[in-house]
Amino acid sequence: MTLTLPPAEAARELVEPVLREAVGRLDPHTARVARYHFGWTDDSGQPRADGGKALRPTLAVLSGRAAGADVARCLPAAAAVELVHAFSLLHDDVMDDDPVRRHRPAAWTVFGRSAAILCGNALLTLAVDLLLEQGTPGYVAAARALNLATLSLIAGQAQDLAFQDRDDVTREECLRMSRRKTAALLACACSIGVTAVEGPAGLAAALAAFGTEAGLAFQLADDLLGIWGRTEVTGKPVLSDLRTRKKSLPVVAALTGPTEAGRRLADLLARPEPLTEPDLHDAARLIEQAGGRAWAELEAERRLDAATRHLADADMPADVRDSFLHIARFLAFRDH
Amino acid sequence: MTLTLPPAEAARELVEPVLREAVGRLDPHTARVARYHFGWTDDSGQPRADGGKALRPTLAVLSGRAAGADVARCLPAAAAVELVHAFSLLHDDVMDDDPVRRHRPAAWTVFGRSAAILCGNALLTLAVDLLLEQGTPGYVAAARALNLATLSLIAGQAQDLAFQDRDDVTREECLRMSRRKTAALLACACSIGVTAVEGPAGLAAALAAFGTEAGLAFQLADDLLGIWGRTEVTGKPVLSDLRTRKKSLPVVAALTGPTEAGRRLADLLARPEPLTEPDLHDAARLIEQAGGRAWAELEAERRLDAATRHLADADMPADVRDSFLHIARFLAFRDH
Repeated sequence: MTLTLPPAEAARELVEPVLREAVGRLDPHTARVARYHFGWTDDSGQPRADGGKALRPTLAVLSGRAAGADVARCLPAAAAVELVHAFSLLHDDVMDDDPVRRHRPAAWTVFGRSAAILCGNALLTLAVDLLLEQGTPGYVAAARALNLATLSLIAGQAQDLAFQDRDDVTREECLRMSRRKTAALLACACSIGVTAVEGPAGLAAALAAFGTEAGLAFQLADDLLGIWGRTEVTGKPVLSDLRTRKKSLPVVAALTGPTEAGRRLADLLARPEPLTEPDLHDAARLIEQAGGRAWAELEAERRLDAATRHLADADMPADVRDSFLHIARFLAFRDH
Repeated sequence: MTLTLPPAEAARELVEPVLREAVGRLDPHTARVARYHFGWTDDSGQPRADGGKALRPTLAVLSGRAAGADVARCLPAAAAVELVHAFSLLHDDVMDDDPVRRHRPAAWTVFGRSAAILCGNALLTLAVDLLLEQGTPGYVAAARALNLATLSLIAGQAQDLAFQDRDDVTREECLRMSRRKTAALLACACSIGVTAVEGPAGLAAALAAFGTEAGLAFQLADDLLGIWGRTEVTGKPVLSDLRTRKKSLPVVAALTGPTEAGRRLADLLARPEPLTEPDLHDAARLIEQAGGRAWAELEAERRLDAATRHLADADMPADVRDSFLHIARFLAFRDH
């Protein structure tokens, strides 16, 4: 069964005008890169239909609704989180030399690395400014929360880079890295609405804890898709994470277990020459034999359970809680 | 005569602890890059004496003093402006492939491009957070002013990149680009102290106008040093800007004047092969013959005069005004 994300359409339709207005404030060079990256235009600047999941804006809107606020009051927060997400994708693709993003050429391949770096910087700055211009104490607090999430995201990416030079990364280190690189911004998305509309601090904390666990489930699912995902739904080459020898969670789990398959996987990944197609399929099989796939699948479920428990502790309208749960399940079990 | 910058020592001593504390909040990988970039450590992490001019913190502290505030109240603003400046240098060196910064290997050559990009992002985020954590309306307004300056800086850099593919850049376009890329952050430094301590809006506006003109004088002087500066004082190779065929202000002025020397310069710079040492010296001579050097020197003086007039309109203690003027003269006429 393919899980879908029903409320995303609605959130995207509400948030997109805010994003478009914000991008419209940028200089023409930078705005052009941003519009392409968001999927609003093609590489010649012509309009096209967008394809983003609008996951983080959806969570931010739900967050405000959890505190009883109108959707309209949370839209700047929803847009700001999406801008920070867009910033991180633009920069990550440059740093990882990744030529594909959302089934299209990554922005840096179209406009150059410098233009992509500058556009990322602009979106990050715009995100904070969108919050500050609301002029309320709640929105100032939201800006601080977003800054902290951004610093976490940067720390996680720095740690991920450092992992590339090490062959002794533990599961715990890898989970800690994912908590910063992926889960921190999702936790911020889940709580920023409450903060922005000056809702209860306890509710913001519970939703942040929910978002952290759901974010880890999301990363585990992402890492599973990076090895076993189908190209036609992920938009990435088959076995893409193995090609780049990424130390993703299933790989690290396989390498750190005391199995013969794990040892053979370590030898395979340590080879200096590029991995052939048969090598990649061998690697995927060894990860599975060493228990890396089963561990990641089980860990995603455990994280989903933990997320669910955090949500149970928090007081919010039933339909908002249901939507949060639906999304968390999507994040943990999606196939794209 | 070599002009010096006397109040910088004092401002640096006051601001550096604030900067060090802020950098101490970053993850260890990113903090290491930041400490190296600020000149506090060498490439192995050992302490060394710093060499920065602390120009922007000095201006920010003077700005607060212009509004009658204690120096201590302006220090977060002074540190924030320096963090944004550090962010822009880290990223510019990556984008321009520039291997030298302040007589030392640029951070990206030591830690890699990705680490330098991430460190820049972290310093930008930290800058805004340093302002917001002060928790006053003045400091929230200061954060917005800094965000606007950052967006200007990005727009200027994007425009500068676009100039590389054009051979019809006008003086006016080039000045407009410099106004964004260089002068906007200096204007912010000159006014952010007033904003942060909630001084008169008119004073902030006058000091921003002063900073814009002084910033243009600074850029003109910088462009002159990039061609005729002495390596032992600038720390850059002789004729460095000509080597990279940078469309700096004296070059554009030479190219856009209807002179025979200007036409010969255009032909020389249009050659596909790398420029030889004799070519570079020819180019410098042609710029001078075409009037590019004289125009830039005169324009720097005109900008300094305009800056001085803006300062005359504003009410502030006499010693603060004298310091601002001294710095503006240094910016326009320095030899390093």
